[in-house]
Amino acid sequence: MNIRFVLRQFGLVIMVLCACMALTMCWSLVQWRAKMVDERSAALSLLIAVGVALVAGITLWVIGRGGMDRFFGRREALLLVALSWVIGAAVAALPFFIWARFDPAHPQGHRFEHFVDCYFESMSGLTTTGATVLSDISTLPQGLLLWRAATHWLGGLGIVVLFVAVLPHMGTGGKRMFMAEITGPNKTGLRPRIRDTARMLLLIYLGLNVAEILSLRLCGLSWFDAVCESFATIATGGFSTQNASTAGYRSLAVELVIILFMLLSGVNFALYFSLVNGRVRRVLTDPELRLYLLTTLAAVVIVAVAIYGGSIITANGDSVEADAGYAARYAAFAVIATRTNTGFATADVNPWGFLPALILILFMFTGACAGSTAGGIKLVRCLVVVKMLAAGTRRVFRPSLVQPIRIGRNLVPPSVQTEALTYTVIYLLVFALGGTAVQLLEPSGHTNLVTSFSASVACLSNTGPGLNLVGTVQNYGWLSPGSKLVLSLVMLLGRIEVFAILALFNPSFWRRE
Amino acid sequence: MNIRFVLRQFGLVIMVLCACMALTMCWSLVQWRAKMVDERSAALSLLIAVGVALVAGITLWVIGRGGMDRFFGRREALLLVALSWVIGAAVAALPFFIWARFDPAHPQGHRFEHFVDCYFESMSGLTTTGATVLSDISTLPQGLLLWRAATHWLGGLGIVVLFVAVLPHMGTGGKRMFMAEITGPNKTGLRPRIRDTARMLLLIYLGLNVAEILSLRLCGLSWFDAVCESFATIATGGFSTQNASTAGYRSLAVELVIILFMLLSGVNFALYFSLVNGRVRRVLTDPELRLYLLTTLAAVVIVAVAIYGGSIITANGDSVEADAGYAARYAAFAVIATRTNTGFATADVNPWGFLPALILILFMFTGACAGSTAGGIKLVRCLVVVKMLAAGTRRVFRPSLVQPIRIGRNLVPPSVQTEALTYTVIYLLVFALGGTAVQLLEPSGHTNLVTSFSASVACLSNTGPGLNLVGTVQNYGWLSPGSKLVLSLVMLLGRIEVFAILALFNPSFWRRE
Repeated sequence: MNIRFVLRQFGLVIMVLCACMALTMCWSLVQWRAKMVDERSAALSLLIAVGVALVAGITLWVIGRGGMDRFFGRREALLLVALSWVIGAAVAALPFFIWARFDPAHPQGHRFEHFVDCYFESMSGLTTTGATVLSDISTLPQGLLLWRAATHWLGGLGIVVLFVAVLPHMGTGGKRMFMAEITGPNKTGLRPRIRDTARMLLLIYLGLNVAEILSLRLCGLSWFDAVCESFATIATGGFSTQNASTAGYRSLAVELVIILFMLLSGVNFALYFSLVNGRVRRVLTDPELRLYLLTTLAAVVIVAVAIYGGSIITANGDSVEADAGYAARYAAFAVIATRTNTGFATADVNPWGFLPALILILFMFTGACAGSTAGGIKLVRCLVVVKMLAAGTRRVFRPSLVQPIRIGRNLVPPSVQTEALTYTVIYLLVFALGGTAVQLLEPSGHTNLVTSFSASVACLSNTGPGLNLVGTVQNYGWLSPGSKLVLSLVMLLGRIEVFAILALFNPSFWRRE
Repeated sequence: MNIRFVLRQFGLVIMVLCACMALTMCWSLVQWRAKMVDERSAALSLLIAVGVALVAGITLWVIGRGGMDRFFGRREALLLVALSWVIGAAVAALPFFIWARFDPAHPQGHRFEHFVDCYFESMSGLTTTGATVLSDISTLPQGLLLWRAATHWLGGLGIVVLFVAVLPHMGTGGKRMFMAEITGPNKTGLRPRIRDTARMLLLIYLGLNVAEILSLRLCGLSWFDAVCESFATIATGGFSTQNASTAGYRSLAVELVIILFMLLSGVNFALYFSLVNGRVRRVLTDPELRLYLLTTLAAVVIVAVAIYGGSIITANGDSVEADAGYAARYAAFAVIATRTNTGFATADVNPWGFLPALILILFMFTGACAGSTAGGIKLVRCLVVVKMLAAGTRRVFRPSLVQPIRIGRNLVPPSVQTEALTYTVIYLLVFALGGTAVQLLEPSGHTNLVTSFSASVACLSNTGPGLNLVGTVQNYGWLSPGSKLVLSLVMLLGRIEVFAILALFNPSFWRRE
């Protein structure tokens, strides 16, 4: 294990965090000079956080010198990824924590007095989950709101680069399967070298962000809101600047723009490569993309029918009669926000009953396409698992039949099949353990099964809001510190696809080779 | 597909059912002559059922002539198994259904007016589940009580013969894994030919039954109760002759005897072969047996600690202070009754809180040893799955490492690994679908999530009682007919290990070869 090099690279990650924080601080300073009194404490806390992060980053960079010429392999990459999220979230939590010291004005209004809450919030940001401990979001200074959005942006970028550019090229674990193997043989257009690929992804990611920012600005949002909401959409995060999430803008146009960009963010980013390279046919025939769009459409229709005729409580607290238009509008938003694991909300889904809740929970589990910023098990894995189950059924009466499994035209090798199935089982296991832990950690009567287990899947799939007491119009602030730490870990496990974190607990991971 | 031969064999199965029914009728007649007025209707309904079954059996036997000389393979065996349980349960339901016509005296007291209830009860019997629609059991005539116990006895015998003697020798699906492959290479002592093996199993099964009958008789039970409870124990069924299940006898000795024989029934019957053949070491070193005993012990301790100091509501409705002795006694019974999927009860577990409930639900899922009459996923499969998950963790940082998986000294081939994992996933899927169906089929407010989903796992694992409204001191009688049919199907899927039933819905199953 080349610890030095890991530390040096990790120092670099901290400095990237630090740079984003500095940019956020600049905005905060501008606002302060524009006589927004509230911004002073935000700008100051960001400044201190930048200082701390800079010192930490440089220290790590210096400590790590001399490791450059040694081997950097899979284990080093995994450790770096784990450190980036686990310690990165602690660094990203600093502005929230310091701000709470500066601003005793609303100690009750905001829950940032305790570091656990700050850590939960920043882990939720960096894992693009979007679960919040805050109940009154809009009174936060702009500097902190922008920093919340920035953690989404950073997390989303990290995931895309990691899962599409870096890990597939290192042939690591389950990440390999969707790029190097399934889409590999017929060259999806991913550039051969990691650096080029990463640069291309950054451009696509930025392009989507810019497109959404401009669209939202055209819908009448301020630049500030447009930027924050876009960062949260493209990363499929879900932190909004509004207490009522997307419903706060009271604009159909805004909802439609966000629906569109949520859908786009759930697509495998490798397909955008194909598009850029003119391989339109490749994109149109992608089995995962088709499944993604079809199941989304079907779910929207089912949920719309289920809620038609009743009354919908919007996230603003208004009650509207669910005629066909409203039913479709709120169903589409809820389904797509959940299916892409974004977690924005326009309505309270708790009163919708069992069937819509079931579909939303199911979509949290499946998630959207692999290689996107969405969470969940990923559709292509689900597809492999379903085909394996069908093959298992045939094997009962034809044990000797060789049954190759294909996704589109590509053969799925047995090792990848096993990976998909293993991942599904461990995912369900983490879900069950997470829900159990919350149920046990909360004092009696504070939670219930639906709340605890929906919180577990909402965090594991990086969706954010769950059901019942952690529903779309509720938040995670009321949970005990123990539960918040457990759910932070669950978010992390979901984001890094579980095995990468579990590997660190395997003694042989640390053994000298 | 050799349909004729399947029908002929199925006719034979019906005639076996018929013979058991006839024996039960004899007992009922003896009781009637002993001036038990209630028995008249029971004896008559059994008589009519015997007549109907005999005609049906002979008809099938005749229709099926001429198929004997043709091929009888895997697909025929699977169809026969499915028919035996699906139609067999309908035949076994006849005595209940006819009795309700004869005996309008307690139309409210017993729920056998509707055929769906009778079918649920007999399917529950034949799958050794032990879920009942009855609230007042002890007022049933002895003929019907004995018939309920007899369905357990038949079902348990069918399962042992099928899963230890027949299917492994046919190399079919998941059944193969635990006998032919894992324990195969070092000859567990299973006789080579199916007929001999089946005969040996019958003897072991009978031996266990006789041993328990004598033990219970020594504890002071009547011969009738001793027989019924033994049939229900060795088959890990759970139908009792008492309203309060095992607690009805108010005897520690009876509880201890039943605990012992439940434990024995959860052991792989192939190990009894080894014992008979003097291979004691083979038994003592069996990894599944060790896991079975250790986890059971651990769970008893945890549950006992969890309920210690509170008060326990027994199945009789009494309240006792949970001192160390009582806590251990009731915890041991609940844990072992659930872990072996028997479903007897001495206490109401609903007030025990989250942790004990969680352990019981977990044990329903895992079940006991493969090759026993217990249900669930089976411990050896869980063991394989856990080892695969550990291997998956190592694969993340050492993708090229070859990681053989062993159970004890035996290598588990990749195809068997995949089977174990596939089975686990489909099992969880059926559980989720079953719970969802019940939740959707019940009128609003009649059920809740804990009830619906615990009913699903309790039926799927062939345990019987679940939690909340289908808990140990409740029953399934209040459910709607739709839910009862769904749960009957779920019991069947659990009993025949899912894939064998799903195979029938695969078009290529029916295709001419």
